[in-house]
Amino acid sequence: MISFRKELWYNTPKRRQLINITHEIDSCVYESGIREGLVLVNAMHITASVFINDDESGLHQDYEDWLEKLAPEKPYSQYHHNGFEDNGDAHLKRTIMGREVVVAITNGKLDLGPWEQIFYGEFDGKRRKRVLVKVIGE
Amino acid sequence: MISFRKELWYNTPKRRQLINITHEIDSCVYESGIREGLVLVNAMHITASVFINDDESGLHQDYEDWLEKLAPEKPYSQYHHNGFEDNGDAHLKRTIMGREVVVAITNGKLDLGPWEQIFYGEFDGKRRKRVLVKVIGE
Amino acid sequence: MISFRKELWYNTPKRRQLINITHEIDSCVYESGIREGLVLVNAMHITASVFINDDESGLHQDYEDWLEKLAPEKPYSQYHHNGFEDNGDAHLKRTIMGREVVVAITNGKLDLGPWEQIFYGEFDGKRRKRVLVKVIGE
Repeated sequence: MISFRKELWYNTPKRRQLINITHEIDSCVYESGIREGLVLVNAMHITASVFINDDESGLHQDYEDWLEKLAPEKPYSQYHHNGFEDNGDAHLKRTIMGREVVVAITNGKLDLGPWEQIFYGEFDGKRRKRVLVKVIGE
Repeated sequence: MISFRKELWYNTPKRRQLINITHEIDSCVYESGIREGLVLVNAMHITASVFINDDESGLHQDYEDWLEKLAPEKPYSQYHHNGFEDNGDAHLKRTIMGREVVVAITNGKLDLGPWEQIFYGEFDGKRRKRVLVKVIGE
Repeated sequence: MISFRKELWYNTPKRRQLINITHEIDSCVYESGIREGLVLVNAMHITASVFINDDESGLHQDYEDWLEKLAPEKPYSQYHHNGFEDNGDAHLKRTIMGREVVVAITNGKLDLGPWEQIFYGEFDGKRRKRVLVKVIGE
C-alpha cells in the first residue's frame, strides 16, 4: 500500500464561494502514482465543505439561496455560537453540504460520473483555509 | 492490497424512488474476495444518492414528504438551474441525502449494524443511471 | 495492509446528546499500530450520527434548535414511521448530520484540522448503541 498526502490552500474574496477543485485533486492522484485505491478529500475547517455536484452557475445560485433559507446568516443574534464570532450559519451550512468526499481511483484516474465535479464550498471566507487530500492504494 | 470495481445500473419508473441495494453490494464484496477492507458505494449521477437507513415503508414516505418540504419539485421556475432542465430540486434533495457511503468489510462481509440497509435514492429517474462500487482491502 | 476493528458503546441519559469521541478514536488508531491510512467511524444505528465539527456549547445548542426546526420531534403523529415507534424525527435528524466520517491517518495520528473534533450524535438515546471504528493502512 502506498499513501500520499497534500494540503491545498484557499482564500476566497467573498464570505461564501464555491470553487471547482477537480483538476487539483486529479493532479494529486497523478502525483501519488497510485493506480487503484481511494482518495479522501476533506475540509480541514468546520465552516467549509468538500462536496460533489454539477459545475453549473444556476445550481450554484440555487445552493446560495437554499442554504440562506435553511440557515440564514443574519441576524447574527439568532445563533448561540455567535458570541465572539459571527459564523454560526456557516457551521450549519457546511453540515448540509458535508465535510468530505471519498472518490475511487481506477487506472490512475478519479473514477467520477460524467457530471461529477469536486467543489470546495466556503461559507466563512476571506481568510486562508485548507483542504486535505489523502490517497491510499497501489 | 486488492481492489475491485463494479457498476450497478438502475432505471426507476418513477421520478423519485428508493431501492434497497444491500444484497447487491454484499454480492460485490463476495465477488471481490476481500476479507478485510472498505467498500465505497456512490451515485455516479448528481441527482441521485446512496445512503444508509431503515427499510421501512413509513420512513420512506416520511423522506418523500420531508424532502419535498425542504426542496420542493414545483414550481420549476423557483430554481435558477431549471432553464433547459427541471431537476433543480433533485440536486438539492440528493445533497441532503448524501452522495456516498463507506462501509467496513470484516470477515468477508459488510460490517453493518442490525437495521442498516444500503439504498439507492433516485430523485430524477425514468432513465438509466449508475452506482459505483469500489472495494479495497485484502 | 493492516486492518483494525473496534466497537464503542454509548448510552446517553437524554434522548438527544452530542459526545466528543475524538480521544477514543485517537486511542483506536494508536492501538491499531497503523501509521498511514484511513479510519472509518460510523454509527451502527440509524437514529444516530458520527460527524465532525467544533466542541463549542453554543454551537451544540444551535444544532439542537436547528434540527428541531428542520425535523421536529413532536407531534409524533406527523411521521408515518411512528406507528409502534416515536423516533421518526431521529431518522431525519441523523440524515442531516450524516452517518459516518472518514479521517486520514498520518504519522500514526488522526490528521485533523485545528478545530476538528469527532462527535457521536445521539437522536434517540436512553439505550445502549454502538459506533464502529475500522482502520486500514500500514
